[in-house]
Amino acid sequence: MTGATEKQISARISATALESFIVRALVAAGLPREDAARVAALMTRADLIGSDNHGVFRLPQYVERIHKGGMNVKPSIRVVRESAGMALVDGDNGMGHLVMEYATRVAMDKAEKSGVAWVGARNSNHAGPASLYAAMPLEREMIGLYIAVGNANHMAPWGGTALLLSTNPIAVAVPALEEPPVVLDMATSVAAYGKVKGAASRGETMPEGWMIDREGRPLTDPQRAGEGSLLPIGGPKGYGLALMFSLLAGVLNGAGVGRDTVDFNADQSSSTNTGQLIVAISIAAFCDVAEFKRNVDRVIRDLHDSPTLPGVDAVRVPGERSHAIRIERERAGIPLHGTLLERLDALAARLGVPEVRATN
Amino acid sequence: MTGATEKQISARISATALESFIVRALVAAGLPREDAARVAALMTRADLIGSDNHGVFRLPQYVERIHKGGMNVKPSIRVVRESAGMALVDGDNGMGHLVMEYATRVAMDKAEKSGVAWVGARNSNHAGPASLYAAMPLEREMIGLYIAVGNANHMAPWGGTALLLSTNPIAVAVPALEEPPVVLDMATSVAAYGKVKGAASRGETMPEGWMIDREGRPLTDPQRAGEGSLLPIGGPKGYGLALMFSLLAGVLNGAGVGRDTVDFNADQSSSTNTGQLIVAISIAAFCDVAEFKRNVDRVIRDLHDSPTLPGVDAVRVPGERSHAIRIERERAGIPLHGTLLERLDALAARLGVPEVRATN
Repeated sequence: MTGATEKQISARISATALESFIVRALVAAGLPREDAARVAALMTRADLIGSDNHGVFRLPQYVERIHKGGMNVKPSIRVVRESAGMALVDGDNGMGHLVMEYATRVAMDKAEKSGVAWVGARNSNHAGPASLYAAMPLEREMIGLYIAVGNANHMAPWGGTALLLSTNPIAVAVPALEEPPVVLDMATSVAAYGKVKGAASRGETMPEGWMIDREGRPLTDPQRAGEGSLLPIGGPKGYGLALMFSLLAGVLNGAGVGRDTVDFNADQSSSTNTGQLIVAISIAAFCDVAEFKRNVDRVIRDLHDSPTLPGVDAVRVPGERSHAIRIERERAGIPLHGTLLERLDALAARLGVPEVRATN
Repeated sequence: MTGATEKQISARISATALESFIVRALVAAGLPREDAARVAALMTRADLIGSDNHGVFRLPQYVERIHKGGMNVKPSIRVVRESAGMALVDGDNGMGHLVMEYATRVAMDKAEKSGVAWVGARNSNHAGPASLYAAMPLEREMIGLYIAVGNANHMAPWGGTALLLSTNPIAVAVPALEEPPVVLDMATSVAAYGKVKGAASRGETMPEGWMIDREGRPLTDPQRAGEGSLLPIGGPKGYGLALMFSLLAGVLNGAGVGRDTVDFNADQSSSTNTGQLIVAISIAAFCDVAEFKRNVDRVIRDLHDSPTLPGVDAVRVPGERSHAIRIERERAGIPLHGTLLERLDALAARLGVPEVRATN
């Protein structure tokens, strides 16, 4: 596995092998084994559900940030304020996965008693796909709602050109009975910045509607992305949502937003002071859980039964695609393309740990 | 004030006069005076902030619904389930304004103790603009978040043609220190259905992007709106948001969604079983209130300081326009156009109460 030709070939890696690799990389980078295992489980889940830009793809960047002092490998993650319906968690600049798994557990424990609990986090970091945390409460018959302040500002306010906003995502997960859960995970921009970078790396042109330049003209060359702004969904509406998510998940928690945002791609050594929030909603507090889930099934089936527009094979419900990908990848393994494999092999060499394919 | 010519002229009515008129109309329709006063204050506030489609404009429709037995004038609005962080309110088919003012008060009282409280409502009705309720917690140094299931389905799921979704709105209100509060109030569709009806009444064409027909082609003739679907913001994203809001504000509360939605324009006698939710977030539970507000001011000013795109005079923050309209209308009165005045005069005659201009 050293020739350039082999490296170009993408491989299927089992979830177990990928998870083991992430554990040994993070342990080598300095994380306690238990924390490394937690992060690895969540990162692997991101790859399993098809969030390819938010799983192991981020590992080299995380390790670099740890090495450059931008992330704390032994954080004291703790609740700094709390009440029956809320808590504020300080992540002590630990990995976002650890901070948000902790925060979500606090939210679920509180919602068990109080019906609903809203938990904010500050001094956190990039935590992978939003849906990971929104979906955790499902195991406890709860609905999850997650909002995050993004780690790089690629969006201007509507009508403006200053890049003061991130593509702040929201995720909501609602359980069903026989159907898979409904899981929405979306950025407030038309296209996530990862899609722009993807187009750039493949040498493709972006469709109009993703970005504009500083004159307001469509920007379709992804190599020129730095000269423009992502467009929010629904124009001023998506701008409004992104702004509100900055205030709710950022300012309220004492986290960085706007000009205080640390671009985690450009700066590997400063604390990002990332802000996130998770709301856990106990269904049993509102109604009979089984009846609720049956009603969600009915909503899903009514949507599936909708006639379709010409050229559309079926109406989809949020989370269906991820659910199908997860089933396929649990069986057949997680596909890692050649460039990513090369980067992971280089990382393994740097950290002195066996490559990802060593244990497949 | 009886000639057809005078009726065509639009008039400015003082907020006090408008409120008095609404009170006497609702009392004549059967509401207890105290309830009528509450609804009138909220409806007048809707007109003051420029939500012209959600204020007195709706009065004839509300009265018709009351007369046809579709709304309960003496509801027993009550908490049917509660915990420290939540409550479920049954509106007993009362006017939505009464139900949601009650629910918001419950949410604020609970948030005072628990930090955050989420209150759902069922058996409610149309309650005017979403921002009314999101903004109530501002008086108690709280953030408000409101979501509603709309009362008519004009939106199909992404890729489909069955009209299973309403334009389910969200509103969020966040206080600032010296700046006006940031208040977002938006539908999850590109255009609210009221804008379609407005274009139809003015004989105008709709821009592409508001609606599509059952073949997926742009629908620009508002007279043909019944043949098409409103488009969600950001395509599948707005569809996902509208769906999630149906589940959170509808199904979770035991309210009607999807095919159970009663079109309040077409059916005046059936209960709508409208669902809404309000979350009250006590800022003091998270941080120092004054510091929070100062930080919100800073975010607002940074947005205002953004350079603008060509042809844009200034970057605006959600709520600014409403705030300016309110100041202007509190001074100069609320403009009511001729057609609306005619409808209100006809209503006054039917109810046997003095016309709106009688007390101006």
